[in-house]
Amino acid sequence: MQFDSLDDIRAFCRDLPEGDGRMADAAARRQQMLTKPPGSLGRLEELAIWLARWQRRERPQLDRVTIAVFAGNHGVAGRGVSAYPADVTAQMVANFNAGGAAINQIARVAGAELRVVPIALDRPTRDFTVAAAMDAAEFLEALDIGYRTVPEDCDLLAVGEMGIANTTAAATLCAALLGGGAENWAGRGTGVDDAGLLRKRAAIEAALECHRGILHDPLQVAAALGGRELAAIAGAVLAARQHRIPLLLDGFVATAAILPLTRLQSGTIDHCRAGHVSAEAAHRVLLHELSLKPLLDLNMRLGEASGAGVAILLLRAAAACHSGMATFSEAGVSGADR
Amino acid sequence: MQFDSLDDIRAFCRDLPEGDGRMADAAARRQQMLTKPPGSLGRLEELAIWLARWQRRERPQLDRVTIAVFAGNHGVAGRGVSAYPADVTAQMVANFNAGGAAINQIARVAGAELRVVPIALDRPTRDFTVAAAMDAAEFLEALDIGYRTVPEDCDLLAVGEMGIANTTAAATLCAALLGGGAENWAGRGTGVDDAGLLRKRAAIEAALECHRGILHDPLQVAAALGGRELAAIAGAVLAARQHRIPLLLDGFVATAAILPLTRLQSGTIDHCRAGHVSAEAAHRVLLHELSLKPLLDLNMRLGEASGAGVAILLLRAAAACHSGMATFSEAGVSGADR
Repeated sequence: MQFDSLDDIRAFCRDLPEGDGRMADAAARRQQMLTKPPGSLGRLEELAIWLARWQRRERPQLDRVTIAVFAGNHGVAGRGVSAYPADVTAQMVANFNAGGAAINQIARVAGAELRVVPIALDRPTRDFTVAAAMDAAEFLEALDIGYRTVPEDCDLLAVGEMGIANTTAAATLCAALLGGGAENWAGRGTGVDDAGLLRKRAAIEAALECHRGILHDPLQVAAALGGRELAAIAGAVLAARQHRIPLLLDGFVATAAILPLTRLQSGTIDHCRAGHVSAEAAHRVLLHELSLKPLLDLNMRLGEASGAGVAILLLRAAAACHSGMATFSEAGVSGADR
Repeated sequence: MQFDSLDDIRAFCRDLPEGDGRMADAAARRQQMLTKPPGSLGRLEELAIWLARWQRRERPQLDRVTIAVFAGNHGVAGRGVSAYPADVTAQMVANFNAGGAAINQIARVAGAELRVVPIALDRPTRDFTVAAAMDAAEFLEALDIGYRTVPEDCDLLAVGEMGIANTTAAATLCAALLGGGAENWAGRGTGVDDAGLLRKRAAIEAALECHRGILHDPLQVAAALGGRELAAIAGAVLAARQHRIPLLLDGFVATAAILPLTRLQSGTIDHCRAGHVSAEAAHRVLLHELSLKPLLDLNMRLGEASGAGVAILLLRAAAACHSGMATFSEAGVSGADR
């Protein structure tokens, strides 16, 4: 395993691999020379420069793009916090493998390979309202699965998840690490009704009370209040950082999954961008807390990397403009009257 | 010509071709059956239903997608309202034809054919601070060029423009038809400096004063205060409506170009969506006035259909999910616990 203990993760985050600032500067200079008013491609310019920094290439490429979707089951699902039965996690994994889900269609349009990684679906995490969802060993095992899912040579990674009841885990992580109480972080997820929403809030409050002794430690929180697919996302984010792969986060659950890492060290997610902001209201709050500005705001709330998958398309446009446009001198176009 | 007089346009807008509500309803029902919580694809669902309505197909296709970029020159450019010399319009058309501009790269990524249509670049419109930019015949000629640019069989059309000084024309149309004064509509366009911005405002105010007698008539305003590429965009929007082709608008200038049509009849642009909101601040105000909610907000301000072109990618994702996803019964996935 890459990380044999929580301390190994802490050590990694104290000495993070960095992108290449010279390549970012070179890409920024190239943007100034392309046949358009400076800055007029807006965030597409910033994205091209960000890709250049992490790919360590003046002209980034998107030849191999990978979407990783991790799936897990949750003991807290037994508390009636979701609109769907827990069986749906495995059923949707089968749907991913059969090519029938939204992310299959989006991956095809985005020119990305899809890796679907179910993690011990027959072994849900423990109900974290009464016990730790995972012990350290279980957490590290799931994190390692995520780490090993990332191809070292991919040009861009997008991460997402599937797991009935996992917005409850995500909301609990946020409440544990950022405060604010259950009512601020619990939303309707896949569409829970009023009674279910009350049960969801109660579960979050019970979890915070049960685990109050470890709330000061982000990684212990990730194990006790998270889930296997969330741990795997954290592992994929660490692998991407190790290999200097730019990464797109999906929605609320994927962003909550990396929240513990951000509490260890500023800069842990400099190689990440938020693909979109979800309709799950807590996501907007969480992105703001993490200073992440989403690329898309389409009222999506599906998970399974769907928002991040659509955002890959924006990166394709950004990279194509960056590498393919003519410069003013190449095209014989006059500059500004200055 | 499709329209021999301004009255012909008025007559067309009184009896607009409509989309197929039954196909929109069928598409909405299909969305409810796909393997996702209802509504969880957010705007991608609404876009699929909108495509179904105008393509009159339950499962819309995007086999032939066309991007039309119209270019024109403006007499008002002589008043120093732009950061760039007027020669740049023709130079950029050459750049489009050589494949070196942003829209060439975006069209390739979006799988769209690009039609570049320069209109009488050696014959700028008259300086509208002192005369009508176009008379009715010139306006109808440019509008007809736009109309004839649209392939009857295309599945989706995106429209944009190129024309040094045309944000001045766009701002003038907005001030003429919506009020609010030059200072509310004039922005920096391609990046004009403070002195240029003052000249731009002065030009708009002079134009409003010069043409105060016709401000009650949207089509006379479009001729006297617009430009050839703006008239062509209006023509393309009318052709798309005639052939029931869904259409993506680009930025501030493209949206201002269709403003006169919206003043003739509500519903004139029901077949249109705003591809993005530009960094040119007036665009956000104008979209709000027209109840258009942009698909993207990426701080772009390039024109040349770049924002609409990127938005094509979102429609590809929407259509792929709509047509390619399995239903709950096909996939054997359980529904919500209700």
